[in-house]
Amino acid sequence: MMATSESELTTEVIASFNNTSDPRLKEIMQSLVKHLHAFAREIRITDEEWLFAIEFLTQTGKMCSDVRQEFILLSDTLGLSSLVDLINHSKGDDRATEPTILGPFHVANSQVLQYGDSIVARALTEGEPAIVRGRVVDVDGNPISNAMIDVWQTDANGLYDIQESTEVSGNLRGLFKTDSDGKYEFKTIRPVPYPIPADGPVGKMLRSVNRHEWRAAHIHAIVEAPGYRQVTTHIFDKESKYLDSDTVFGVKGSLIKEFKKQPDGDLLLEYDFVLVQG
Amino acid sequence: MMATSESELTTEVIASFNNTSDPRLKEIMQSLVKHLHAFAREIRITDEEWLFAIEFLTQTGKMCSDVRQEFILLSDTLGLSSLVDLINHSKGDDRATEPTILGPFHVANSQVLQYGDSIVARALTEGEPAIVRGRVVDVDGNPISNAMIDVWQTDANGLYDIQESTEVSGNLRGLFKTDSDGKYEFKTIRPVPYPIPADGPVGKMLRSVNRHEWRAAHIHAIVEAPGYRQVTTHIFDKESKYLDSDTVFGVKGSLIKEFKKQPDGDLLLEYDFVLVQG
Repeated sequence: MMATSESELTTEVIASFNNTSDPRLKEIMQSLVKHLHAFAREIRITDEEWLFAIEFLTQTGKMCSDVRQEFILLSDTLGLSSLVDLINHSKGDDRATEPTILGPFHVANSQVLQYGDSIVARALTEGEPAIVRGRVVDVDGNPISNAMIDVWQTDANGLYDIQESTEVSGNLRGLFKTDSDGKYEFKTIRPVPYPIPADGPVGKMLRSVNRHEWRAAHIHAIVEAPGYRQVTTHIFDKESKYLDSDTVFGVKGSLIKEFKKQPDGDLLLEYDFVLVQG
Repeated sequence: MMATSESELTTEVIASFNNTSDPRLKEIMQSLVKHLHAFAREIRITDEEWLFAIEFLTQTGKMCSDVRQEFILLSDTLGLSSLVDLINHSKGDDRATEPTILGPFHVANSQVLQYGDSIVARALTEGEPAIVRGRVVDVDGNPISNAMIDVWQTDANGLYDIQESTEVSGNLRGLFKTDSDGKYEFKTIRPVPYPIPADGPVGKMLRSVNRHEWRAAHIHAIVEAPGYRQVTTHIFDKESKYLDSDTVFGVKGSLIKEFKKQPDGDLLLEYDFVLVQG
């Protein structure tokens, strides 16, 4: 009550959450206040910096829409999304596919395509044609049939379909079911590095700290099968720029794979997703 | 690069700010990442909780408008605003008026009124009439003439003019200059406790943790004079409810004053603002 010092104030604010009925919510709010106050005290935040932060957060909220989640971008670029991923999705088995972040461009209920189909929904004039194929297996290498693989990636211009002003709905997205041998295959184009949307507060932040806004080239995948833990991951292109400075901290060594030139000139990437039971 | 543990990830994210040109910005961002990650790790934040936080922040941003600053309310109710105040506005002299938070309802360039004028800009049908008077002095008690006192408060219904749907512009606001004896005086009504705007995310937060949304009754003041440090403060009504649980942690013992009943039935509050040189 009526704190007169900084530490007394923090104690008073923490105590104001003592009557929270939900013990988890109480734990979260009290930890939040502790760390938020510790941050403000450590940097000796000024009035102007506080107001700047208020305005930054307000603009970040204003930037959000059905197809733009600026707070997720902020979380991504501060490494929080990757941390949440590490906290919750440790793979549980060294043999299993490592997870990485979901990102803001996933769309639920993409079209179910057939083995070997192309996810390119437009006339193929740009991008390097590529085939991605492999299996979904358990940690002992046994094939998992009827696993569902949800893939999505940017087009050759670095944009996801939902970012396009003239959107080709479902372009470069698709759901694939593994066959009885656990196999999947789809046609696509080689992914390209792309900048995260940088015309908002997060882009401003990155420029002000001399960080670039690029992600290493990757294909997103969510893989699930009954009786196995779902994995949300990326396949990164081994020859991509930015593998060591991905602006959202999503790269993991085990997820970097090679597009190999085939005799016919097309690219082939072979990759097995390994799921953990449970 | 390609962190595989939580602490490695935090180190990598902190390092990503190493090239920031502005040393202060670098310090702030690196401290922010350190404390934000420490918070997430301490509570072992889940995917669902992270998404809830993203949505909460987004809604908080969406709630902001020209007359509503939900992020300031959030800062207020988490005690951050009071902490920023303590960090930056230690009064510097035990004899000086203690500062407290600005709050989101200040309006720049209120009307300049004359000694003794009323700040009530509507027909006076509600509220207890009161006179507030006193002096602006230095820490040795010498009067400061030509000091400017910017006062604002809620109406009897607990709303500031800018919150009213049918606003009486400038109601319960005014600028007063001290006379040659450092004196000021204005007519008003007794302030009432009021709830902070609770129809948004912050109100939801308060209800979910069983906290009330009320502020103890007060009159806001910003006092400034050439050669003296400006002070942003409140005068709290000694008989108000919520003095010991003000939801934005703004109360300080030295700021609690008494409205005294005068023989004519009106209330009088006498208060000297004490400024520090510099």
